[in-house]
Amino acid sequence: LAVASYKKHINKDKPCKRFVLYYHDKLFEGDDVGNATSAAVYNGTGLGNFKFGKMVVFDDPLTKDRSFVSPPVAKAQGFYFYDMKTTYNAWFAYTLIFNSTEYKGTLNIMGADMMDEPMRDLSVVGGTGDFFMSRGVVTFQTDVAEGIYYFRVKMDVKLYECY
Amino acid sequence: LAVASYKKHINKDKPCKRFVLYYHDKLFEGDDVGNATSAAVYNGTGLGNFKFGKMVVFDDPLTKDRSFVSPPVAKAQGFYFYDMKTTYNAWFAYTLIFNSTEYKGTLNIMGADMMDEPMRDLSVVGGTGDFFMSRGVVTFQTDVAEGIYYFRVKMDVKLYECY
Amino acid sequence: LAVASYKKHINKDKPCKRFVLYYHDKLFEGDDVGNATSAAVYNGTGLGNFKFGKMVVFDDPLTKDRSFVSPPVAKAQGFYFYDMKTTYNAWFAYTLIFNSTEYKGTLNIMGADMMDEPMRDLSVVGGTGDFFMSRGVVTFQTDVAEGIYYFRVKMDVKLYECY
Repeated sequence: LAVASYKKHINKDKPCKRFVLYYHDKLFEGDDVGNATSAAVYNGTGLGNFKFGKMVVFDDPLTKDRSFVSPPVAKAQGFYFYDMKTTYNAWFAYTLIFNSTEYKGTLNIMGADMMDEPMRDLSVVGGTGDFFMSRGVVTFQTDVAEGIYYFRVKMDVKLYECY
Repeated sequence: LAVASYKKHINKDKPCKRFVLYYHDKLFEGDDVGNATSAAVYNGTGLGNFKFGKMVVFDDPLTKDRSFVSPPVAKAQGFYFYDMKTTYNAWFAYTLIFNSTEYKGTLNIMGADMMDEPMRDLSVVGGTGDFFMSRGVVTFQTDVAEGIYYFRVKMDVKLYECY
Repeated sequence: LAVASYKKHINKDKPCKRFVLYYHDKLFEGDDVGNATSAAVYNGTGLGNFKFGKMVVFDDPLTKDRSFVSPPVAKAQGFYFYDMKTTYNAWFAYTLIFNSTEYKGTLNIMGADMMDEPMRDLSVVGGTGDFFMSRGVVTFQTDVAEGIYYFRVKMDVKLYECY
């Protein structure tokens, strides 16, 4: 099977698998080990006023509804950092880990989170287990940001390669 | 459609999309917020003499020609770090962000930058928007390195999966 | 060629390429530049007792057998960090670099290393050179962990897209 390159059409409205999850990031404040789900490993450079360089490692729960205390259906392990001097903007790389009766496996994700945009797309670059070799797109929407210690993002995960 | 695995041929000389861009990295010196496009979040370990572990977060412009002040056609947000003790070598993960009349969307890229090689290949592992689900290769060539605060890399982006 | 999305079957038992390698990580102790292959760039937050946030940059050898001093057949350049507060767990992103008579090229890998599991899968998200455009899965098995300065992981690299 020889091809010069791929020029195919995939219908963006018809992912082969899709789920909407709420991602909760509760940043460690120093005395809340029980509640915190992430922690800063670097607090930022002096390049501008939008935390340029601040880097956070996370092990964050994902729930089907908006409640932080709902039973998580997956978790997200990875990191993000802020990377603009003129506004808030972040870059993410992480793994969605499923370990439930419904799904067992992981999805690996990376991309830019242009926080000023209402919706922004990151890439699902691979998967394992029930998501073996999957690829797709995750659409982020900020659901709420409460000060600097808690935010919630709606993640709409759409897979276009399912095996 | 059942396949044991993929063994296909793609002609490396015929990408379905290609563009050559110049990436400019102007490292923050502490007092040049206006010009700087990147900043170190860690200054390196003592493992060898080649900045092992030095980590830089960037929001760097890409231009069609070599001039730092040309209008950028895209930007690159992400990070790199140095990772060899016997020579300069870096590892990159970043997102190319296009927001022009020509293209809107992102390409997600990662890989090793073996700086001693004249040309080195990194992977385009995913894309969004006009680059929905794209994959390919980016070839780096150092164009100039001026001291420790500025370097320019020619990035030859070749996509072999276009949708 | 128009498709709504991909729903294909790949036989997980029949990768188009496979190799088993041993990854050696010898963390820099401050006075062993000659032997060390990695170095911590951050020593961890106080979130729990399992090095949450500790980040390590590495240039680690891979060998065909278990011996650290065997001739490496590849090297791994990238980073990992610990990301759980209740147990040891890490997240990896790195490039496998081959430069031998057998293979020349790179494989780019990312994913979660759930160290309590006997086997865990990460994603091969791209490749270059002899591994042009490859994708697949890497299965990690901890082979030995000697204190905090040396560990060895068996990496079973299985490619399911070969071009």
